This record gives sequence, structure tokens and C-alpha cells, in this order.
Amino acid sequence: MTAAPTLADCQALDAADPLRPLRDLFALPEGLVYLDGNSLGALPRATPQRLQQVAAQEWGQGLIRAWNDAGWFDQPARLGDRIAPWIGARAGEVVATDTTSANLYKVLSVALRLGARNAPGRRVVLSERSNFPTDLYIAQALCAQHGCTLQLAEAHELQPLLARGEVGVLLLTHVNYRTGAMHDMAALTAAAHAAGALAVWDLAHSAGAVPVDLHGAQADFAVGCGYKYLNGGPGAPAFVWVHPRHVDRCEQPLAGWWGHDAPFAFTPHYRPAPGIARYLCGTQPVLALAALDAGLATLEAALPLGGMAALRAKSVALTDLFIALVEARCPDAGFTLVTPRAHGDRGSQVSLARAEGAYAIVQALIARGVVGDFRAPDILRFGCTPLYTTHADVWQAVEQLRRVLDTGEWREARFQRAQAVT
Amino acid sequence: MTAAPTLADCQALDAADPLRPLRDLFALPEGLVYLDGNSLGALPRATPQRLQQVAAQEWGQGLIRAWNDAGWFDQPARLGDRIAPWIGARAGEVVATDTTSANLYKVLSVALRLGARNAPGRRVVLSERSNFPTDLYIAQALCAQHGCTLQLAEAHELQPLLARGEVGVLLLTHVNYRTGAMHDMAALTAAAHAAGALAVWDLAHSAGAVPVDLHGAQADFAVGCGYKYLNGGPGAPAFVWVHPRHVDRCEQPLAGWWGHDAPFAFTPHYRPAPGIARYLCGTQPVLALAALDAGLATLEAALPLGGMAALRAKSVALTDLFIALVEARCPDAGFTLVTPRAHGDRGSQVSLARAEGAYAIVQALIARGVVGDFRAPDILRFGCTPLYTTHADVWQAVEQLRRVLDTGEWREARFQRAQAVT
Repeated sequence: MTAAPTLADCQALDAADPLRPLRDLFALPEGLVYLDGNSLGALPRATPQRLQQVAAQEWGQGLIRAWNDAGWFDQPARLGDRIAPWIGARAGEVVATDTTSANLYKVLSVALRLGARNAPGRRVVLSERSNFPTDLYIAQALCAQHGCTLQLAEAHELQPLLARGEVGVLLLTHVNYRTGAMHDMAALTAAAHAAGALAVWDLAHSAGAVPVDLHGAQADFAVGCGYKYLNGGPGAPAFVWVHPRHVDRCEQPLAGWWGHDAPFAFTPHYRPAPGIARYLCGTQPVLALAALDAGLATLEAALPLGGMAALRAKSVALTDLFIALVEARCPDAGFTLVTPRAHGDRGSQVSLARAEGAYAIVQALIARGVVGDFRAPDILRFGCTPLYTTHADVWQAVEQLRRVLDTGEWREARFQRAQAVT
Repeated sequence: MTAAPTLADCQALDAADPLRPLRDLFALPEGLVYLDGNSLGALPRATPQRLQQVAAQEWGQGLIRAWNDAGWFDQPARLGDRIAPWIGARAGEVVATDTTSANLYKVLSVALRLGARNAPGRRVVLSERSNFPTDLYIAQALCAQHGCTLQLAEAHELQPLLARGEVGVLLLTHVNYRTGAMHDMAALTAAAHAAGALAVWDLAHSAGAVPVDLHGAQADFAVGCGYKYLNGGPGAPAFVWVHPRHVDRCEQPLAGWWGHDAPFAFTPHYRPAPGIARYLCGTQPVLALAALDAGLATLEAALPLGGMAALRAKSVALTDLFIALVEARCPDAGFTLVTPRAHGDRGSQVSLARAEGAYAIVQALIARGVVGDFRAPDILRFGCTPLYTTHADVWQAVEQLRRVLDTGEWREARFQRAQAVT
């Protein structure tokens, strides 16, 4: 076993990192190690001024005319076109709109209806027990509505369960929010299709963080989040994608006027727009979309520096480094590595489980300027965003983790209060 | 008949207007007469700086911690509490969230389910033929889902149709977006209840513009818009209210994690929060909510100046003035007054119908710095926002209207292009 990397080693890695200039696109607080970009991406430096400009100029001066003159109407489609290449979709197939939960409601409704047409006997929605809860809640609501059953399973049980032929829709989050484990989208989609089921993918922890190829995987539907690795700001609009083979086959239930073929004809009858535009519903949040625009620009700045391949290589290097440092420097600290070691099975985060004190240790780390987060009941979660996380950040995080444990300060009452919500 | 008011008369009315200082809270473009606040409210001067502060400080410096430290989690409820008094609701009964269309989907779903429990035979949703289309589209989607029928009628037919006993839900927009006609909410709600139906009200053109008393009317459900008279910015979050007698009786279908009783317990099973919080779904747009906050503050600035009574008195005076000036100064111009003359039947806009050239006349007015809007096929629509519209604005608008007609410039090709979308 080689010696663990030193801070100097990490600084040398940062100096040689071709993506290093991208960090300067973000306004990170001085001295803070931010490893929670998988919950809320950092602020792009350009965003406040962009918001100022949209508010003061476009809205303030343009007023209602800005819907046309400033291109507000096209925002959801235009931003969708820019999200598309990061998820293996094509221009015209994605819109940025609403929340991940609402978009999941739309696509899962349609998947259930298409599934009922294709194979009326398959009344099971299959998902992972540790899928992000909102996905399970939306699925529960829709299963109740459609007379279906939501079956929850462990990851390794998914393929055998699919093979039973009862599943109509496979609903998975590509990268697990707790563990950081990444599914093989192509293999599971193929297994779903072989079993006569449709595959719905939640890309909340994937888009902008890991390579995603929806067309390559022949996926059916996807949704994802704008405020994590796309850096669109707190509660940023989410996105939705539907494979062209399905998009015009069905209306989605949130049939508001923005999904109408001619919203300003004000006709009393709904006629869905062709293509993904029918997945819009109400009037879209222009200010929030402007912030998402600025967030996407930070990702696009990686294109001339190697794009997703370079981002992924750095992400894997950072999470490898995190794991190596924890194992070398906190060897008997009671941590269990939850995130898979195999690169192909790993997203862009490292999760550690600890039977005692996981919450308090995260709080003590935050007090020391290292922001990760806690996921009940026992997970410490550290996200690496290759756009701005440095190797030295990772070194500092593990250094402070070691100190929190060595000092025992996490046992102090101030770190033991009721769970913070992050 | 007395002589039409002159510009000097209007200026004198403005000088004596106790609400006049409120206009200074808005950043209206110099020289523009803006009569489209019923489509998009004007920019509050405070908003750009507020956005800057939320982005640069709360997000940029606080990062994930701002969800707690900056009170982001409470925004939907806190803003809901501030909307409540403007619509006759109580604190704790309203949340600011999602879009009007999505919120209507939630409440109408619940109303249909409650209706089916109370009176299984009543399978009709009754609405107005000229209701805002998105309301009709959402109703169509839900009627298809629930096996109900959407019946559209003229306003005067509503009470007789209710009396037939087939209606489960009466779905109306309080102030009509095209005509500016205002329903008697208390009378229609009482008629609905007498007929065994529930009443769902869309307050998009009412909230902040006219007195609304949901509790007084014993209404069942309401939704409304944040970007019109609440000045929350383009695509601002909407709001939703449910009468306390219904709110805990049913789950709404968009059962995302923000409506969960304990979202950060990450339990796999949905357990709706008590009260209106269960009408939340996904992660809420913090930046857009901050802009809505600043918008609400402009309305609240009217409270020490007489509040809604003063706003309503000015609104009626402005629309009366508009009507009087059009009739006096454009007597043979081919306009038909569409908005009711009776104050009790009128919202805060004036709509004129004209068989020929309505679209082009609106465009020619915009070119002259008077922004109203066109609603297909033949309506010129002029909104008066008592927070910032002046009597002199109204005078100028009619003066320019007269000139557009006198010169015949609206016939120029540049004003005849395909309908603008506003």
C-alpha cells in the first residue's frame, strides 16, 4: 500500500488540473470546503448580475413585451436544448420546467397509461427501496390512481423481479442520493424492455456529474434536477425528457396552457403541442430560468477543456482520493464505505456510514468549515463537483474529519441538536 | 352629460390621491403608460436588489445552510400567510407554490374526489365558457381521468344549471380575464352548496386587485397568480388555499416530498403534512419566491393608506374614468364596452371589443407608449393597477387611442403582423 497523498500532493494535482480554471466561475466563500453540490450547487459568479439584468432591464423596462422581445417564451425549450447533450438527448427533446417531482408525475402517468395499453396485465411499478423518497411518493400516488402496485426492491433484485413479467414500469434514480451507487442504465433499460416494461430514469444526481446516454440506453422517460450539478440555484426548474417514440402518443395530465399547441389562441379545448412542449403546464418562472441559464453556462465552460469525459475523470479521481484518505487517515473510526469502489458503479459522491454520531460529526465538520451533509439514519455524504471541487478540498475535508474524531468534539451538545434539514 | 375630464382634471385627481406615493415603489419606464399589470405586474424597485442579496449572500455565502439559516424552507408558508389577508383567508391556510395551473390540478382533483364521496351521482364540473383556457384544459384532463363531464355555460346560465343537481364541482375564475366581469363569489358559492356542489375559485385577476373574502363566501378551494396584481415577476409562484373543513380530508395527487409531514425523515411512505403544507410538491424556487416577497411588500405598503378599500375605490375610479373618456372622446369608433358598468360586477380592467383591427390598434398604441393587450379575437384590454396606475395614465391612454383612430395609423402594415403573444 502506498502512502496516503499529502496536502502538497493534492495541491500539485490541482496545479496540473486542466479544469482548475472552472472553479473561478463560482463565488465560493473564502476558506470553505463545499462538498454539498449534490444537494445545492454553488453560486456561479455570473448569476447575480444576470438576475439583476433580467429583473431591471427585461422585466422592468420591457414589461409584458419581454415575453417576446427577451425570448422568455422560448426559455424552457432553449435551456432544454442545452441540457440535452449532457444527458444523451437531442435538441428539441427536453424542456426545463417545474420541479423534478411534478415532472415525474407527468412522465410516470404517461408511462402507466402506455404500459396499460401495451400490456394490461402488468400492473407493477418496480423501484428501489432506497430511491429518493419523492419519487416513491409520486409513484404511490399514481399507483393508487391507476390501480397499480408499487414494489420496492434492493438493487440486485431488480433484474430477477423484472424477469417475472409483472412489471409495467421500472422507475429508478440513476445515481442513488444516499449511497452514490450508479445503476447501469443501458443494462436495466434493456432488461425492462425484454420484460415488456418501460423505463423511467431520474437523473437528479447524474445530469452534469456523470456521463448519461439516454438514447444509447434506449430509455423511455427521464426527469432531472436543475439545482444540483447544473448550478441553477435553490429550487431551480427541473427538466423532463421523453423518447421521441413516445412523446406524441399520449397527453400528460398536467395539461396547462403552456403545453397547448397554440396557447394564445385561447381556444376552450386542449390540443397538446407536438413534441416535448406538451410537457409544459403553467407560466414558467423567468427569473429562476435565467439563473439556470447561468448555471448551465458553467458546465458549458468545461466543453473546450474536455467536456464530460474530463469532468468524469476528475470526479472519479476526487472520490478515489476521498476514499483513500479516509482509509489511510481514519482507519479505525467506525466508518463503513457505502459508495461502490468500482468506478463504473459510482456517481460523484462518497457516502460513509457510521453507527454512532453521523449527524453530529457532520455538524462538527460544518463548524470547521467543511460542508457535507447527513442522511438519516447514519450516512455522512460528501459530494464532489468536478467544476469546482479541488483535490486540496478533499484533503482538507478528511483532515478536519480526522480532527473531529480525534478531539471527540462531535460529542459536544451543540452538535447533537435535532436533525437539520438540508 | 358633463364634459369629459381633461388632463388637468386627471392630474388634480392624482395630486389628491392618497395612494399616489405607492407608484414610486415601482420602476416604471419613463413616459410609458402601462395598462397591462393584469398580465404582468410592474417591477418593484426593491426587487433587483433583493434578488441580488438572496443570490449573492444567502445562496452564495450560505449555500446549503441557507435552507435553514435564511428561512428558505418557510418561504411558501410565510408568503402564504401574507397573501391570506388579501383574499379573506387566515394565516396557515395558504401556500405560495408552483403555478396556477398545477395548483388548480391539485385542488380540482381533491374536489372531484370529495364530490364523488359526498354525492356520487354528480359527475359534472360546471365552468364558464369564457373561463381562462388553462382552467378549462386542466378541468378537461381531470374530467377524463375521473370519468366526469365538463360543462361550459354562460355566466347567467350557471345558477339554473346548478339547480339541476348534476354538478359536483363549480369551477370559476372570479374576475374574467377577457371581459373584466366579476362574479358574485358568495352568491355562486351558496348556489353551488345548495345544489350539493363544491366551489373552486381562481383568483388570478382578483388577488390584490379587488376585495376577496373566501371565508365570508364559504368557498371550498382557491388558487391564484403571483405575477399579476401581486407583482411577483414573470412566472412568479402561484398560491393555493383550501378551506380548513376540507384540507385534511384528502391527499392531493402531486404528492411530492415537500408536502410530506417530515420530508427529511426520508421515509419511503408518503404521509401528508397536516394543513395546507400538503399542497406543496417539489423543492420550491427560492429566487422566484424572493421576488414574490418583494412584490407583496408593494401591496402591503397600501395598508397604512387605506388598504384594499382604498385600492378598490381607486380602481373603480380609474376604470370609470377610462370608460367615460372612451365614450366622450371616441364616440363613433366602433367600440363596444365589454366590461360591466356596475361597479359590483367589475374587476380592475376595461375591455373594449371592436369588430375590426383590435389587434392592430393595440400594436399601434404600444408603439405610442401605451401598453394594453389584445385578447383574441376582438378584445382590447386595459388593466388598471391602483398601486401604480394614475388618472393621467388613463387620460393619456385614451388620448393615444383617439389619435391611433384619427390618424388611421393602425392600418399600417407594421401593426398587422401575426398575433403577438402576451
